[in-house]
Amino acid sequence: MTMDQKWTKRYEAFAEHQAARGIDLQSVKKSILAHHIETPSWGYADSGTRFGTFSQAGAARTAQQKLADAAMVHRLTGVCPSVALHIPWDKVDDYAALSQYAASLGVTLGAINPNLFQETEYKMGSLCNPSEKVRAKALEHCYECVEIMQKTHSKNLSLWLADGTDYPGQDNIRERKHRLEECLGAIYDRIPNGSRMLVEYKMFEPSFYTTDIPDWGVSYSLCKKLGEKAEVLIDLGHHAQGTNIEFIVAYLLDEGKLGGFHFNNRKYADDDLTVGCINPYEVFLIYRELVDGWTDPRLNPDVAFMLDQSHIMKPKIEAMLQSVIFLQETYAKALLVHAGRLKEAQLAGDTIAAEEELKAGYDADVKPLLAMIRIENGIDPEPIAAFRKSGYMEKIIKERSK
Amino acid sequence: MTMDQKWTKRYEAFAEHQAARGIDLQSVKKSILAHHIETPSWGYADSGTRFGTFSQAGAARTAQQKLADAAMVHRLTGVCPSVALHIPWDKVDDYAALSQYAASLGVTLGAINPNLFQETEYKMGSLCNPSEKVRAKALEHCYECVEIMQKTHSKNLSLWLADGTDYPGQDNIRERKHRLEECLGAIYDRIPNGSRMLVEYKMFEPSFYTTDIPDWGVSYSLCKKLGEKAEVLIDLGHHAQGTNIEFIVAYLLDEGKLGGFHFNNRKYADDDLTVGCINPYEVFLIYRELVDGWTDPRLNPDVAFMLDQSHIMKPKIEAMLQSVIFLQETYAKALLVHAGRLKEAQLAGDTIAAEEELKAGYDADVKPLLAMIRIENGIDPEPIAAFRKSGYMEKIIKERSK
Amino acid sequence: MTMDQKWTKRYEAFAEHQAARGIDLQSVKKSILAHHIETPSWGYADSGTRFGTFSQAGAARTAQQKLADAAMVHRLTGVCPSVALHIPWDKVDDYAALSQYAASLGVTLGAINPNLFQETEYKMGSLCNPSEKVRAKALEHCYECVEIMQKTHSKNLSLWLADGTDYPGQDNIRERKHRLEECLGAIYDRIPNGSRMLVEYKMFEPSFYTTDIPDWGVSYSLCKKLGEKAEVLIDLGHHAQGTNIEFIVAYLLDEGKLGGFHFNNRKYADDDLTVGCINPYEVFLIYRELVDGWTDPRLNPDVAFMLDQSHIMKPKIEAMLQSVIFLQETYAKALLVHAGRLKEAQLAGDTIAAEEELKAGYDADVKPLLAMIRIENGIDPEPIAAFRKSGYMEKIIKERSK
Amino acid sequence: MTMDQKWTKRYEAFAEHQAARGIDLQSVKKSILAHHIETPSWGYADSGTRFGTFSQAGAARTAQQKLADAAMVHRLTGVCPSVALHIPWDKVDDYAALSQYAASLGVTLGAINPNLFQETEYKMGSLCNPSEKVRAKALEHCYECVEIMQKTHSKNLSLWLADGTDYPGQDNIRERKHRLEECLGAIYDRIPNGSRMLVEYKMFEPSFYTTDIPDWGVSYSLCKKLGEKAEVLIDLGHHAQGTNIEFIVAYLLDEGKLGGFHFNNRKYADDDLTVGCINPYEVFLIYRELVDGWTDPRLNPDVAFMLDQSHIMKPKIEAMLQSVIFLQETYAKALLVHAGRLKEAQLAGDTIAAEEELKAGYDADVKPLLAMIRIENGIDPEPIAAFRKSGYMEKIIKERSK
Repeated sequence: MTMDQKWTKRYEAFAEHQAARGIDLQSVKKSILAHHIETPSWGYADSGTRFGTFSQAGAARTAQQKLADAAMVHRLTGVCPSVALHIPWDKVDDYAALSQYAASLGVTLGAINPNLFQETEYKMGSLCNPSEKVRAKALEHCYECVEIMQKTHSKNLSLWLADGTDYPGQDNIRERKHRLEECLGAIYDRIPNGSRMLVEYKMFEPSFYTTDIPDWGVSYSLCKKLGEKAEVLIDLGHHAQGTNIEFIVAYLLDEGKLGGFHFNNRKYADDDLTVGCINPYEVFLIYRELVDGWTDPRLNPDVAFMLDQSHIMKPKIEAMLQSVIFLQETYAKALLVHAGRLKEAQLAGDTIAAEEELKAGYDADVKPLLAMIRIENGIDPEPIAAFRKSGYMEKIIKERSK
Repeated sequence: MTMDQKWTKRYEAFAEHQAARGIDLQSVKKSILAHHIETPSWGYADSGTRFGTFSQAGAARTAQQKLADAAMVHRLTGVCPSVALHIPWDKVDDYAALSQYAASLGVTLGAINPNLFQETEYKMGSLCNPSEKVRAKALEHCYECVEIMQKTHSKNLSLWLADGTDYPGQDNIRERKHRLEECLGAIYDRIPNGSRMLVEYKMFEPSFYTTDIPDWGVSYSLCKKLGEKAEVLIDLGHHAQGTNIEFIVAYLLDEGKLGGFHFNNRKYADDDLTVGCINPYEVFLIYRELVDGWTDPRLNPDVAFMLDQSHIMKPKIEAMLQSVIFLQETYAKALLVHAGRLKEAQLAGDTIAAEEELKAGYDADVKPLLAMIRIENGIDPEPIAAFRKSGYMEKIIKERSK
Repeated sequence: MTMDQKWTKRYEAFAEHQAARGIDLQSVKKSILAHHIETPSWGYADSGTRFGTFSQAGAARTAQQKLADAAMVHRLTGVCPSVALHIPWDKVDDYAALSQYAASLGVTLGAINPNLFQETEYKMGSLCNPSEKVRAKALEHCYECVEIMQKTHSKNLSLWLADGTDYPGQDNIRERKHRLEECLGAIYDRIPNGSRMLVEYKMFEPSFYTTDIPDWGVSYSLCKKLGEKAEVLIDLGHHAQGTNIEFIVAYLLDEGKLGGFHFNNRKYADDDLTVGCINPYEVFLIYRELVDGWTDPRLNPDVAFMLDQSHIMKPKIEAMLQSVIFLQETYAKALLVHAGRLKEAQLAGDTIAAEEELKAGYDADVKPLLAMIRIENGIDPEPIAAFRKSGYMEKIIKERSK
Repeated sequence: MTMDQKWTKRYEAFAEHQAARGIDLQSVKKSILAHHIETPSWGYADSGTRFGTFSQAGAARTAQQKLADAAMVHRLTGVCPSVALHIPWDKVDDYAALSQYAASLGVTLGAINPNLFQETEYKMGSLCNPSEKVRAKALEHCYECVEIMQKTHSKNLSLWLADGTDYPGQDNIRERKHRLEECLGAIYDRIPNGSRMLVEYKMFEPSFYTTDIPDWGVSYSLCKKLGEKAEVLIDLGHHAQGTNIEFIVAYLLDEGKLGGFHFNNRKYADDDLTVGCINPYEVFLIYRELVDGWTDPRLNPDVAFMLDQSHIMKPKIEAMLQSVIFLQETYAKALLVHAGRLKEAQLAGDTIAAEEELKAGYDADVKPLLAMIRIENGIDPEPIAAFRKSGYMEKIIKERSK
């Protein structure tokens, strides 16, 4: 029995059971194929903690190498057609040429991420810095990023501010707010129509007393003032312990202000582990809110799905493949919940039946479904195994060690 | 040396030092006298945890007894002229009579707090309940509370919702949001001009999966939609661990949406301990943000300062006295920060000097200042000792044990 | 196709796949059948939060009713042969008669749980109370519970102390420790050979400043001093946010001090939701540590698996069924991990392969396996559906409403 | 009026009040003078977060420069006579010469801190690494550090392990435990009599799933097995949110296993801010437990007080001065609590009076007391101001920029 036959057999058993549950698998397959996940250029490069950076053989260093690795991930999964850039880490002289290079690899350039934290001047903040000179420098960098967006045909400016203070009294909270609102307004004014500014929040780190955009409430409040092109970006690792993230997803979706995700997972703080490794059910519940929200014709389905992880203990390309596959499987599980039965149980106050219906989706083993989708689309049903067999890793280790 | 002489002597040393620091103590004294703290009727009655309620001898049971105890607290501190009511716990036939009784004791009736959690019908929610009939009942109760406000000349409807769900799938998050917005709108429409609706948030408990108003972001978003008469109420025990509450205070103040406080303290969850018992510096930092905000003429100084605590291990009236005194002392410390020097250090990026200026306020021993204010206003300089000497406790134990 | 045929067909596909993975399903089935879960008498009775108790029609009130409900759960699952008792909630005059009644229903009496928190005297603690008289009362109650153990042939005294303080300064931490050690020693001396004292820990609630047994470290330290018959009891809801519970399980197992579990789940504090409802993967990881530990012949396999939940939003018997089924499924998943392949990947430093092997167990849909085990043992493959069809609920509502 | 006269005057008012409270100030002064705080060499060098390191002009780079800065701190405070070293950051060829250099500056070499985290080999752990070769390397480094201890006459080996795993399944928890116990035993055997091995714990970071020594319970359990020379080291930033650290202090003190402290403060995770900047009351409560414990003649008073902070936003020497002063002030406040009155209130169950007695110590303004102690010992009463006037900073910026 070939691998394809093995998966086909398992898929048939799966499909029979889902048909009996009243699930339209063709529609599920279509949704999964349309679900694109953007991978970040920096996820292919070396990273670490404050205690040290561990170098991996073959890790990408140039923008071109990062694109090549991302293209490999797209080739193996079929759902990662775009790559987020970080400026200046991916700075090049000719962005048109970089776009063309990406196109030649079968991918496009995605969200542009400014860097407002690594320069010495930003020690006391960037857009919130008490010094007008530093704010001007930070603004210039953001303007440059907007220009890059236009050159790379990127649709999203993905803005994360490390701004904050470490000590009570260090700066005036409200004055920082005023500076922030003024600067964001100036950047917003340059965002082209049809593009978006995604405003990320984070509870803490690298600031340890106040953070100027610490939670979704501040992101939301800022985006409301800025206008329609500004939306909130949710990073799964940026919340207080216990925060119900799927509630925030549902709330922002309903408000028309959910811009996108930076997927990863954490057990403690902003650990940047691979998505789903600690609490996979939470990701399922997030997808379930998306599936529910997208049934409402009022609500914008344009959500940017992006990974943002730090692969220290895992080989970078494999970690990315694993994460993409996990997200596909989790979305599939969310689609296997029978919305009608769930609704019925909810209205009847039947908490047990409602939860069991959710679990019927979550507990399904969707690997055969994903394998069949890949087979039907000419992709190897087992992307990680395919990668290991491809010789790609050996090739880049050799090439890049020069 | 009499007690007054002893305090006067200590005050003189204190005043000399503050004068040398450039602090205008007359202005500080005026601010402290004007700083009124509302005590809650339910803080004088028995309370407990889910593991049991411990009864205290003399604990108030009727609305009249609670008012009498609150009046005693006002008599001993001079700054607690109003008493928050909880409906139906303080329900009476004749609110005009209750107001008159309060007036006869020297106090007034303060915020009206509806109860949307103790009835069996509210198990799956009140204003967010899937059942229209239950929502109607909850609305009726809120309308009744608005009517009581008018009868009692209360200026604040203090709204806390226990609504939420315990299990994923139990109800639809966005539909609950729609129900909530519709119901709050209906209540808001009845709030008289010149009065306010304070919308409280709470991370969790008694709901353990979703809470319909879980954080300041939701309260804020709701209040923005409702209008000018709706403002956010901050309870110090209702946040995730690590949340920077003073940041939220500054943010809401700057947005014109800070309605008031429910003061208490916690180490873990919504422990409802007496304010300042776990992290007194946090309360100081909150007051410091208020003092800073009030210097901005754009910002509304009308913030409701209310206690909301559960006195299990402490005698109720003494716990209230201790809490009021702590808030006065903390406000005093915030007023002792020299705003000019702080600003200067901040602009110079001198984090050490900025923090030292904050600490110069915080580390001051303000007991002599508070004692002098009381003496100057004909109040015993040591309210708890005065209470113990008063015989009040013995009297109510005797009277109320009948 | 009958339901049994349907499950048989799904089981065959499952079994074929697991065989290909090298899993010995007969051994898995045997382990699952041998995995007994004790249900608590109080889980069949009404419960609530500090904001109110919601009564459920048919909820058990007497010890006999609780046993009857527990027996129904055992009948439907086959793996819940014992019932934990809480004294005095389940106090009866004749424990021999109660044991016989249990036997007539097909169940036995399990762990005895003393109550050291609901009496007024315990406000400042029970075994740690500064008053010798109160400690003596608490000791007497524990001695009585040890006597009940002997009458009921219970093997476990399950000790949870609510002791602690609410305010800094309220009592002396080290003196409370000395009182605790002395009292526990006195109880320990009465524990019959062959029986155990399980010492539970809890971070906080109902005490909100210190708790006298706040973490596994204190439980462990106490048990080491007490001796071999004392072991640590882990309640899944009693930890700080972020705590790695499976690490504690592995550590205690390795130390020979893991006595048992109180299963439930929480998102925030000690929410007492049904096990697995918030983070099912965590429970899987706990079982995986048990499976790993039990391969070590040095380590005691005698771990007490008990539920301890508060069913507010779910009907009590169904909530118990759902929880037992979840634990069985989760244990099954842990058994489907291929220990050899996992070990190999670990030693090779192949984090991806190691995690994928874990996930191969977790992601399996084990419902067909569990159904087949039930069918093979003469039990309905779908216990909750069977319960709903049984008429039991209608019967007890009718009987108990009298 | 000179500065000394000003402080003397304030001190007299302070002393009069404390005398009235029954406090023996001579004894307090003696205790404060005897309270030595060790500063860490790395606290004088540049540091940062994973997002970047910000260089400070004049920051020490060599071991000699760090000693010089530490000596300056000792000169200005009189209570910091020893300096902790970190190997290999402070590695030198001739430790005898380094000791002599330290002596020439008026300081001695303190705890030796091995580095088991920055080398590539330690990615999967040091003493817990699955590879025997890596463990041997880590052991060799620890042996070297023990040798350095002997050359430097250091009394403490201060051991922090970054060991842990990032992903479920990555390694076997119990096998890591066995490796750890074996390696620690081997190191312990080399600790000279009269010296100690301090075993630090940390909840997480840089490991994000398991940490091999995650809490005091594991440290304690390891130290109990190792023997009398092994004691627990508490770093204030290494706990879960909400953890009651003063309880752990009291517990370990009572068990004879409290070895020392790494002082710092945090609001979120291991933020490494300067001690007392977020919750100064917590540090007071810790000192209060020490003061209480030291009255028990059974208990070892030998506790190592060390700072371990990361000064990003503050100039390093000033940050150290500020921290030392804070610890002195806090210890002084703990000594001002009247132990007799506290005890009396506790035994009477008078929670209010007990807390008020604690607060009488905490709320005291002890700056005049500290100033007087300094004046009496020939030190400038205001160390930070003295440092700013000293010209030292300008000097090292000039010298070290070469």
